[in-house]
Amino acid sequence: MSSDDTTSAEDKLIARYFGPVASHPGALGLSDDAALIKPPAGCELVLTVDALVGGVHFFNDDPAEMIAAKALRVNLSDLAAKGATPLGFLLSLALPKDQSDAWLEAFAKGLREDAAHYKCPLLGGDTVTTPGPVTISVTMFGSVPDGMMARRSGAQAGDKVFVTGTIGDGALGLKVRQAGGAPAPWSLTEEEHEFLRLRYLLPQPRNALAEAVRHYASAAMDVSDGLAGDLAKLARVSGVAAMIDATRVPLSEPARAAMAADPSAFETALTGGDDYEILCTVPPAKVDRFRVAAMAARVAVTEIGIVEAGAGTRFRDGDGRDLTFGRMAFSHF
Amino acid sequence: MSSDDTTSAEDKLIARYFGPVASHPGALGLSDDAALIKPPAGCELVLTVDALVGGVHFFNDDPAEMIAAKALRVNLSDLAAKGATPLGFLLSLALPKDQSDAWLEAFAKGLREDAAHYKCPLLGGDTVTTPGPVTISVTMFGSVPDGMMARRSGAQAGDKVFVTGTIGDGALGLKVRQAGGAPAPWSLTEEEHEFLRLRYLLPQPRNALAEAVRHYASAAMDVSDGLAGDLAKLARVSGVAAMIDATRVPLSEPARAAMAADPSAFETALTGGDDYEILCTVPPAKVDRFRVAAMAARVAVTEIGIVEAGAGTRFRDGDGRDLTFGRMAFSHF
Repeated sequence: MSSDDTTSAEDKLIARYFGPVASHPGALGLSDDAALIKPPAGCELVLTVDALVGGVHFFNDDPAEMIAAKALRVNLSDLAAKGATPLGFLLSLALPKDQSDAWLEAFAKGLREDAAHYKCPLLGGDTVTTPGPVTISVTMFGSVPDGMMARRSGAQAGDKVFVTGTIGDGALGLKVRQAGGAPAPWSLTEEEHEFLRLRYLLPQPRNALAEAVRHYASAAMDVSDGLAGDLAKLARVSGVAAMIDATRVPLSEPARAAMAADPSAFETALTGGDDYEILCTVPPAKVDRFRVAAMAARVAVTEIGIVEAGAGTRFRDGDGRDLTFGRMAFSHF
Repeated sequence: MSSDDTTSAEDKLIARYFGPVASHPGALGLSDDAALIKPPAGCELVLTVDALVGGVHFFNDDPAEMIAAKALRVNLSDLAAKGATPLGFLLSLALPKDQSDAWLEAFAKGLREDAAHYKCPLLGGDTVTTPGPVTISVTMFGSVPDGMMARRSGAQAGDKVFVTGTIGDGALGLKVRQAGGAPAPWSLTEEEHEFLRLRYLLPQPRNALAEAVRHYASAAMDVSDGLAGDLAKLARVSGVAAMIDATRVPLSEPARAAMAADPSAFETALTGGDDYEILCTVPPAKVDRFRVAAMAARVAVTEIGIVEAGAGTRFRDGDGRDLTFGRMAFSHF
């Protein structure tokens, strides 16, 4: 670079690919060292951060638009489960030196589309090189009225346990994705495979339900490491037990087809993770209002069990027997 | 993991190593999906994020305490340059699967000590595995009174250009570090080498000067990619030119000794980066007050030049000739 060329390659990359995503005034056009943000009056900021690593959280040949969308949506899902409204995000991006312009172009397009759709613009970030895989860390900001964030810790005996959407599609979709070109598992139709694969690739965060969660849930979290393990965490932090009727766990038709072919797919569904659905507990007196609000938000919610005094979580099958799992949840370590 | 063991290995790792760093009430004991923060009344939040990659921003065999300290300090330096008071940080940490407990213990110790020293506690984070090198992304939060953040964009013709501390030690220290056990460059004493090496390893962010910067600087940024390149950025964003008297750039004694042995070390000092000093412009009417405030904060500040109308930056040597550099700044791309 000549001494006349005072715009660094890094600054050019940022301006070209990420400038269009930085519509928030606090981003200062990405031309300062820092960004500015202030929660609306009477509100506090909810902070969440999630890192995605190539070869660990996504396949290196996944479409770059979808990788970008997933990096945002796993954080959007956290905000939704906390009852928070998205405000914006910071992007920390480590790229191999030879990452192509086409990849970056597609990645920026994915960011831009989701930032617009979820009204969650880019505030700033840092872009560096790495000898390792693409590594994306998104820090996201949301707002809640003071003291209104839904916690993991508020569940009380007698509360009903709810989940959004359907459970297990992401974990089963990962198995389809892992099979790659090989004969797909469970002899499902191509449409069924595609449904599950997409549920793995592209989470559908339930931000439309955030307000209902804030108003009616006694405790909430998003399901990212598997329903069984995440419920156990919620129960432990709340100091309660939970009894789940496994027959009521909502399943998609493709997931049911997979379980018909291989009953062990049910355990995968409950423990595999990548759901990005909301798990919450609702006091009995608020259940009706919660259901009405969910309907208005067009988010399916299903009652799957009840909070009890004590400790531990149980999943009971149709014959009233407790299910046991080989492992409770996805863990990195 | 058995189904009775509902605390995942990841949760245990977080509780053991990072729990003691999470003294902020908004961290919720690291047991929720998100953290909570609210700027003090009449203040807004300043956000900064910096990623450090093993083999790129630090050597994989650097002491883990120092890697942790550097990850915090490069962000603390951004807050200082923006005139902001630190509030807390989020940590996104990607670790190789075989990273040792001893390394994590030391890394957590480094975090804990600096979090306490700079009153900047851990708010939350995400810990994942990576097939690549250790990758650390820190998002840091500071507060400034509404509208008072020091920008890059406020420099006006006639303003004086100041820097804190001494320039170039980090870039020269990197060369010492790169030499490793080989005969060290410039035939300095072991003490001089150690001084430069430590200046590279362990930035000394100038947070004590933040209030003075906020009150008296028309524009400010931290010097991380080299004084020449960073000054060019500040001038460009402000729409002004800058004329620097290169003989006034503050240098440490070890840096002077290196330059006596090899005059090209001066260019390394001005363009190499890793300074983490504050570069700012101060209107003439505020210079005296700025100097007094800096003295009270015990931070050395040196006037090195002047802002002029026009565009571009010039470094003039003792004979009044313009210096030219092979490159202006460190860039990743």
